Amino acid sequence: MQYCNKDRLQDKITTFSQFGATAGGGITRLSLSQAALDARAEFCSRCKKLGMEVKTDDMGNIYATVKGTEDLPAISMGSHLDSVVKGGNYDGVLGVLTALETAETIVTDGIKTRHPITVIVWTNEEGARFDPAMMSSGVITGKFDRDAMLAVKDKEGMTFGEALKASGYLGDVKNRLNPNAQKAYLELHIEQGPVLEAEHLEIGILEGVVGMVNYEIHTAGQADHAGTTPMKMRRDALHAAAELICDLYDKLSKIDDELVFTMGRITALPNVHTVIPDDVRFTLDARHKDPAVVQQVVEVIKNLPTELEKCAVSYKELWSRKTVKFYDSFVDIVEKNVNGLGYTGKRMYSGPGHDAQYVADVLPTTMIFVPSVDGHSHCEEEKTPIDDCVRGANVLLNTVLDIDKL
Amino acid sequence: MQYCNKDRLQDKITTFSQFGATAGGGITRLSLSQAALDARAEFCSRCKKLGMEVKTDDMGNIYATVKGTEDLPAISMGSHLDSVVKGGNYDGVLGVLTALETAETIVTDGIKTRHPITVIVWTNEEGARFDPAMMSSGVITGKFDRDAMLAVKDKEGMTFGEALKASGYLGDVKNRLNPNAQKAYLELHIEQGPVLEAEHLEIGILEGVVGMVNYEIHTAGQADHAGTTPMKMRRDALHAAAELICDLYDKLSKIDDELVFTMGRITALPNVHTVIPDDVRFTLDARHKDPAVVQQVVEVIKNLPTELEKCAVSYKELWSRKTVKFYDSFVDIVEKNVNGLGYTGKRMYSGPGHDAQYVADVLPTTMIFVPSVDGHSHCEEEKTPIDDCVRGANVLLNTVLDIDKL
Repeated sequence: MQYCNKDRLQDKITTFSQFGATAGGGITRLSLSQAALDARAEFCSRCKKLGMEVKTDDMGNIYATVKGTEDLPAISMGSHLDSVVKGGNYDGVLGVLTALETAETIVTDGIKTRHPITVIVWTNEEGARFDPAMMSSGVITGKFDRDAMLAVKDKEGMTFGEALKASGYLGDVKNRLNPNAQKAYLELHIEQGPVLEAEHLEIGILEGVVGMVNYEIHTAGQADHAGTTPMKMRRDALHAAAELICDLYDKLSKIDDELVFTMGRITALPNVHTVIPDDVRFTLDARHKDPAVVQQVVEVIKNLPTELEKCAVSYKELWSRKTVKFYDSFVDIVEKNVNGLGYTGKRMYSGPGHDAQYVADVLPTTMIFVPSVDGHSHCEEEKTPIDDCVRGANVLLNTVLDIDKL
Repeated sequence: MQYCNKDRLQDKITTFSQFGATAGGGITRLSLSQAALDARAEFCSRCKKLGMEVKTDDMGNIYATVKGTEDLPAISMGSHLDSVVKGGNYDGVLGVLTALETAETIVTDGIKTRHPITVIVWTNEEGARFDPAMMSSGVITGKFDRDAMLAVKDKEGMTFGEALKASGYLGDVKNRLNPNAQKAYLELHIEQGPVLEAEHLEIGILEGVVGMVNYEIHTAGQADHAGTTPMKMRRDALHAAAELICDLYDKLSKIDDELVFTMGRITALPNVHTVIPDDVRFTLDARHKDPAVVQQVVEVIKNLPTELEKCAVSYKELWSRKTVKFYDSFVDIVEKNVNGLGYTGKRMYSGPGHDAQYVADVLPTTMIFVPSVDGHSHCEEEKTPIDDCVRGANVLLNTVLDIDKL
């Protein structure tokens, strides 16, 4: 087995945590902001010092490559450097830094690989400044229209296209990740959930990204005065919504133990304590790796009553995502390396989305998870202990080297 | 029986609907705004033309008096001219205009009353510009501290005291409604509810104002990622809140048919579709004329679980109001006049609060309701047909004249 360097990885983490540092110990590093450009500059500088060739494509995605000994397709790995507002020092950036550490180990330890080894930084994964998330991996894998994405504006009215041009990272379309010239894509990421920690496991061996559906459910009643309207004459949209929420909890809980579902957002109008609500909307997010289970959720939604407590009930799908399955033989290699390195781990699916799920459509792809302390992510408290980070980097390194032999 | 003049009352309603008129056919006439001052000027001008003596007190309440033939305490009646934002042409103002029409009928028909007849305009009943509602009737009946009320600021930072001084309606404390020099207070108001209309009744014979309690109920859980947190590890504050809402509906529905209760406001944090809510708050407003019934609501709240779905449950009382009972013999007189005029009506309690509920603490008081089309109030659609307004005015006039004989 080969091993990455703990001190070197710690230095990377510490250095990158300065770019957009917040008072609370996290970062605010919105895509293409000055903080993100500082992080990109540091990344490019370190890659060039290692003798890597750095290119950017027409979405600002960065590709830093260590040459291989043969004329073969590249093995790529990476993640993103942007964060949400008051995010942490691990989501995304750890995938970039473990990939960089993997490349650095290969270079400095004089390991010769047959294939080129490329570290990728994806532009605007979070979508926190420019919606949607996973914008640039989405464009180059055909999910989103580039022109539409260039026109997306941030809160100040600046378009993604303007920000990209001003950043200096606008590159050539021909530099895009080319599936014909790529052998593999690997992405390490923090779990962003509590499972590995709760089960005292060190590595998540990803099999895919769960499918999901997301609905907005709407109850429409009549806004009347709280003090004058007899109960029998009421059409209380919050009463109807509360019954639906309880009923959905009951029904969805029975479908499958691994189904996760969340009613995360609720708004009531007019939202005044002395007025009966006439308009309540809440969201339902449901995720499972098995499309048949997700379909059962869809059936529950389709069978919602159209009227409840004299209120009209309706719903609309906000979006959905099919389950993404990662490349079986790569998953096997990750598992073999977890065992070979003496780590504990388990096969699992990702609940959140990642650039890897888009890349998986065009390339053999898999992912590696490391634990999140208390399951926190997208917050300043986000934390993965350095030993977990190193274990992840070691799995990534050995997986790259194994794939290099294929 | 004596009768008010329909054309004259319609002219009053039409004229006053101009002050603060909105594009949607309603009014925005916040307390002491220019629109409210225009309405006050019109009111004073009309009173003076009728030979009434006009005074204001130290809260800007206006008292316009027709002299009586004997040195006796006054019979007063009135309501308010201020409205909420985008309110209607009947809430409050109809009580002032029917009182004015009653006085005008007495003057122009040459009816001699033994007691002085006073029409009162209360300052800032709605509390829409300066919180709380019923501010000035509250101050002069000892509910609120005057200095504290003078210091209340509107959204622009102007205090009530500054607005009152600038209005020209700041009068002498000695002009306040003096219980020792008052025989009665009567207030006509729109029902603001659907009951009279639904039961095809013309007049509401008020017996009092229902008691109420108002709580905020809070569930506290843990905000975690919707895609990564297994159901068994969740502490979902919205799940707990929805169960509480349903459970409160069940329990409170069984207490009494006339109990009205409303969960009108709900907020969830962080209120993001992909995050489990950790903080949900909703209000409960419950009203009933019988304090023993209200107490049963209090007991239900006191017996809320302290934990539900692994979330902490707590509550706080936002405020409460004891049931106000109006003066029995006046209620009887109103009922006698409804019958004597050949109108249909029923005894009922007010759900909303009115200046009369404060005055009732210091003076024999009662109220008269007229129907609200579709039960609407506090909106531009607020409507009471002119024939209903005239019927209300006639009941008010004859009730004043009956009390004058006592």
